[in-house]
Amino acid sequence: MRIAILLFDRLTALDAVGPYEILGALPSAEVSFVGERRGTVRCFGGGLGLSVDTELDELTDPDIILVPGGPGQAALMDDGPVHEWLRAADATSTWTTSVCTGSLVLAAAGLLRGRRATSHWLALDQLPALGAEPTGERVVFDGKYVTAAGVSSGIDMALSLVGRIAGDDVAQALQLITEYDPQPPYDAGSPHTAPAHIVKSLREGDRSVLEGA
Amino acid sequence: MRIAILLFDRLTALDAVGPYEILGALPSAEVSFVGERRGTVRCFGGGLGLSVDTELDELTDPDIILVPGGPGQAALMDDGPVHEWLRAADATSTWTTSVCTGSLVLAAAGLLRGRRATSHWLALDQLPALGAEPTGERVVFDGKYVTAAGVSSGIDMALSLVGRIAGDDVAQALQLITEYDPQPPYDAGSPHTAPAHIVKSLREGDRSVLEGA
Repeated sequence: MRIAILLFDRLTALDAVGPYEILGALPSAEVSFVGERRGTVRCFGGGLGLSVDTELDELTDPDIILVPGGPGQAALMDDGPVHEWLRAADATSTWTTSVCTGSLVLAAAGLLRGRRATSHWLALDQLPALGAEPTGERVVFDGKYVTAAGVSSGIDMALSLVGRIAGDDVAQALQLITEYDPQPPYDAGSPHTAPAHIVKSLREGDRSVLEGA
Repeated sequence: MRIAILLFDRLTALDAVGPYEILGALPSAEVSFVGERRGTVRCFGGGLGLSVDTELDELTDPDIILVPGGPGQAALMDDGPVHEWLRAADATSTWTTSVCTGSLVLAAAGLLRGRRATSHWLALDQLPALGAEPTGERVVFDGKYVTAAGVSSGIDMALSLVGRIAGDDVAQALQLITEYDPQPPYDAGSPHTAPAHIVKSLREGDRSVLEGA
């Protein structure tokens, strides 16, 4: 099972690495990190370098496509080599997936027209103009198209996907191997549960709340 | 705030990237990916390449040390450059932390003697021989030493740590930015909740359960 994870500059590392950790552990998995140019891309945040080992034209028919998000998504919204690759790969993929604002790239490439989808909570309102119907779910399956909400939701998506691909026992074994027994110290992971002043600041693009008191 | 994340071949990517995504988003964070040699290390699983940008002797006094785990930990149990670096860096660190079997490396370097600590559930029984006292908690604070359980637990650890460093608002804002509102499709993330036959297989080192039915 060939899995292509798209890498690009200023992606959010966890968008890609959460699902990688789950899907890549399947015995049948052959994971390729694909990008426009072989070499190192730099992630948003602290600048972690990830290796692009496979150029787009070297893997045109993966079984699973995964598009992560992050601030670098904004540079992938125009038609070009990435969209062409996505459309060609999607023509034969078994699953076409995204995490976070990766769904905006899939939608901009024309792959989510008329489909239910999700994205980072701050980006959901961009989906309709791209032809997709946003939902409030954390993981959305619409046929072979699977989109996950922000950043950490890729872990939930990957476990659900493994359940469909390989069965519940395999998915549960991977959940146990990754000890995914989440115990967040706060209940602030959704705009419905986080303190209202934090939601408001982030909606307004004001990240001063990160400076602390 | 200088954060040193140790990289080595055959690490588990999510051990490092979970906390990176949280800690690296702090405005004051300067994250360095340190290792024995500059260049690319390859992660366990699908072979993701991560960049070591800083050699050990280039950053000897980080404020936060983070040691991830993974199968590559086994090659870091003997005294040598990594242990020497850990002991020197720990002498002035504010926080010395680990995820998964990274705690075995900290303990082997002599840094967890007499301290409460945790590790991946399959490795907890190795802590006593290394001088540490294993606990069943997902995140363990003992003074400035913070250890997390397996793989995904580094996200919970990082949020708790940010709470202590920068306050609850900052931690909650980062939880919301990473949309960490976990909704695992199964309740199998701990040996106490996973199906008994899966726990038994993995305890016996039998990973055939990953082959599926």
